[in-house]
Amino acid sequence: MSNITVIGAGMMGSAMSLPASDNGHRVTIVGTHLDRELIEHAKKTGEHLTMRRPLPRGVEFLQLESLEKAVRDADLVIGGVSSFGVDWFAEYAVPRIPAHIPILSVTKGLLDMPDGTLRSFPDLLREADGGKHTFCAVGGPCTSYELADRRHSAVAFCGDDIAALERMRSMLRTGYYHISLSTDVIGVECAVAMKNAYALAVSLAIGMIEREEGEGATLAYNPQAALFGQSVREIAKMLALVGGGAQNIVYAAGDLYVTIFGGRTRKLGTLLGRGLPFAEAMERLSGVTLESVVIAERTIRAVEARTRAGDVDKRDFPLLFHIGKLLSGATGVPIPWEAFEVVEA
Amino acid sequence: MSNITVIGAGMMGSAMSLPASDNGHRVTIVGTHLDRELIEHAKKTGEHLTMRRPLPRGVEFLQLESLEKAVRDADLVIGGVSSFGVDWFAEYAVPRIPAHIPILSVTKGLLDMPDGTLRSFPDLLREADGGKHTFCAVGGPCTSYELADRRHSAVAFCGDDIAALERMRSMLRTGYYHISLSTDVIGVECAVAMKNAYALAVSLAIGMIEREEGEGATLAYNPQAALFGQSVREIAKMLALVGGGAQNIVYAAGDLYVTIFGGRTRKLGTLLGRGLPFAEAMERLSGVTLESVVIAERTIRAVEARTRAGDVDKRDFPLLFHIGKLLSGATGVPIPWEAFEVVEA
Repeated sequence: MSNITVIGAGMMGSAMSLPASDNGHRVTIVGTHLDRELIEHAKKTGEHLTMRRPLPRGVEFLQLESLEKAVRDADLVIGGVSSFGVDWFAEYAVPRIPAHIPILSVTKGLLDMPDGTLRSFPDLLREADGGKHTFCAVGGPCTSYELADRRHSAVAFCGDDIAALERMRSMLRTGYYHISLSTDVIGVECAVAMKNAYALAVSLAIGMIEREEGEGATLAYNPQAALFGQSVREIAKMLALVGGGAQNIVYAAGDLYVTIFGGRTRKLGTLLGRGLPFAEAMERLSGVTLESVVIAERTIRAVEARTRAGDVDKRDFPLLFHIGKLLSGATGVPIPWEAFEVVEA
Repeated sequence: MSNITVIGAGMMGSAMSLPASDNGHRVTIVGTHLDRELIEHAKKTGEHLTMRRPLPRGVEFLQLESLEKAVRDADLVIGGVSSFGVDWFAEYAVPRIPAHIPILSVTKGLLDMPDGTLRSFPDLLREADGGKHTFCAVGGPCTSYELADRRHSAVAFCGDDIAALERMRSMLRTGYYHISLSTDVIGVECAVAMKNAYALAVSLAIGMIEREEGEGATLAYNPQAALFGQSVREIAKMLALVGGGAQNIVYAAGDLYVTIFGGRTRKLGTLLGRGLPFAEAMERLSGVTLESVVIAERTIRAVEARTRAGDVDKRDFPLLFHIGKLLSGATGVPIPWEAFEVVEA
């Protein structure tokens, strides 16, 4: 039995308590300053407020003030913040974690540098930390709701240290939580970050049909499949651009598949596909900033910088730049289907 | 304006009359000996009997007796038979088509040789024909229903002769029918044939949930996405095995996506996932032989032969061989999730 402490009481962080508890570990979830209500609710009811699922008996819920106490005897810390919380995690939480405790982060995303380099969060965390901790990260197609329901889920843990990855796997692998390992950090992280941007793109096809035939129309799949294929093509090119291995397309394809079926990214893509301007679509989504929007914007900036540097041609990413136009508020822009036609001879 | 003759009045052959007619070509559909009723019905009503869609005005429908007449002045012949009709097409139809007329086949599939080589239909047709005709083929995610509804559909035409491919594209490309070209015939054909086998595999996840929670249960997507990712991994290995380019994974992923959402392959996968023995599942599907079953069996035979030859390790295809067990009648075999976990270091 080990002690596993999750920092961040969001849905994915909290869902990680399922495989951890099922393996007999002592689990503590510490909320961030944004999670006070979630922690209060979980303490009282044992349930996660927004995920609306019971969390395992025996999980201890603590407010941020108890962070030091919660990590002191941990064998593993799981970073459970979203990409919007990663700076806070690096600056506030990591320095309070003893250096010998490895950290596994569920945060998905990439950050673009002015020269167009895209950097992964494990890489940025390690840099901010000055090399004191071992950082690994989780990628792959796994929604928190379904992990909390103990659905079969296949993920990849990535990091530089294969021995650390193996230890983390042995702590968290269960009959329903299936874990591959990879030392290709930028490859895995790029694949799973991109799926957010491209899930937006595939969902456009849903809105296009609704615009023509009204909401509740029978969905067509040829257009979605065409956009799915083009997404896979562009993600493969992005993997090559960042120096990630081509085999990571497996995680991108799986993660794209699961993201298309759920949540607000699909909703936003559908609204944009119907022809709504971005600002109006975001209003309908109550203005919550989506990771899919942020990653699309960052990737576009990176590809533009790398195009100026001559490393790549932005015309190889016509679907990404179409999304970029919509996110800039454009409406009435047709999907550039002709640009997706390739000649391979 | 050109003359385009479709041989085979099945759904996909007939749906090809849409882009052909929309481009102003004169289209003739000639039924096979199995299509008499379809042709009779189309002649009377202008509608396709099984697809339940109107076909374009001006399309001429002919019974098999008029084959020679229908191809005499054709500029392009479209082979519209399923993989079960490809022998008939090679032996009966092709010899009646003047040698200068190029042939575009919509038939998807592969045939396995005793040594484990997988051959594409364009390749087999050319061999049977002794090199007289130019054969090209259509791959990619496109269901006939949605093509007939003029939904945006992205396909690939493949063949050895790029000039012939370009001519075919200029005849059939429309605002909704988007055509890439490739001279990597085995790559495109392998990608789009495999999706049939693997669509069966992904659908297992639907049946698994129904078994646990009853039909109509809320679908979970983590398990489907896990199987989707594993399918992409195994198809990529299959592409390498047959010598097809890795970029063809784009067509496989798109085609897998669209196939999961429709038709009898999904139904069969769902029934097998619920735990029904293969024979009983096939009974519920009225015993119609499915292309997905045939392609899975052929691929398994090929991988076994190539494993014996030492070219490949069948353990690299755990999902395919799981499907193989179910098709052999096994029940109660759990999905080999652990075999999908990889270590890439």
